[in-house]
Amino acid sequence: SRELFVLTYGALVAQLCKDYEKDEDVNSCLDRMGYGIGVRLIDDFLARSAVKKCRSYSETADMIAQVAFKMYLGVTPSVSCSSAAGNEFSLILDKNPLVDFVEELPAERASLCYCNLLCGVIRGALEMVHLAAEVTFLQDRLKGDAVTEIGITFLRKADDRKHKKN
Amino acid sequence: SRELFVLTYGALVAQLCKDYEKDEDVNSCLDRMGYGIGVRLIDDFLARSAVKKCRSYSETADMIAQVAFKMYLGVTPSVSCSSAAGNEFSLILDKNPLVDFVEELPAERASLCYCNLLCGVIRGALEMVHLAAEVTFLQDRLKGDAVTEIGITFLRKADDRKHKKN
Repeated sequence: SRELFVLTYGALVAQLCKDYEKDEDVNSCLDRMGYGIGVRLIDDFLARSAVKKCRSYSETADMIAQVAFKMYLGVTPSVSCSSAAGNEFSLILDKNPLVDFVEELPAERASLCYCNLLCGVIRGALEMVHLAAEVTFLQDRLKGDAVTEIGITFLRKADDRKHKKN
Repeated sequence: SRELFVLTYGALVAQLCKDYEKDEDVNSCLDRMGYGIGVRLIDDFLARSAVKKCRSYSETADMIAQVAFKMYLGVTPSVSCSSAAGNEFSLILDKNPLVDFVEELPAERASLCYCNLLCGVIRGALEMVHLAAEVTFLQDRLKGDAVTEIGITFLRKADDRKHKKN
């Protein structure tokens, strides 16, 4: 059952909103906390999913959506690749269980990325399998967008490294 | 999967430990947050468990242990009644999933009731079904006790109310 988790997450965000006046500070705190969680969660994920090593960014993005999101949040985002270079992906959530109990953001918290913890979790977990990535919310239904979209940009491609050496 | 919840809960407790110097303040904040969660969680519980109305404190305590704990934490505490009056119960947890990632409390946080949120949740949920109760940790494996024990004392028995009227 996820309700206890979802409500506890809400209590965490509410506490951070008390602690920090600026939405940006809440967002980066959630991201930082998520990072610490992802770093620890990856072992659990690898042990329980028994997945094989991904051979491409595309496979990795699919794995996050189809295995990890399913396992931890009970939903499966759709995945689309949004760059010709093949290192930028979007996870698109029609339904986001983390906001089940949230009607809408209060007017004074319009820049809050309520679920920013998730970005940090993904970033932390990827780093532990030696993949550097930027993870941010690109769209958010809580902010009136049609869907919730998490963008993942994989960094330090083999090509980039070569490029830097030259 | 509970790991994401358990780690997120850990992040919440860590944040409160940053916010409040005194363990007592962290404990009461966790209890207060839990109360707010319990007040909302009870609807979900009643809808999904489809349990019948309990006819005694003893039935209520069993329901919390066998249905609610099982549903939200995946464990089933044993229940014992600890008062002749029949209004005090102990939930005894051999295993507490909320502390899965906690080795031990730091020395400077010796009075922290790490899982105090649970007490608040139980208290809040009970209040919504018109049962006033005091809920506290009586033993905690994190503090070196052999088991983790949550004490529930039901208040305002019909008898008590009569007593007050006289």
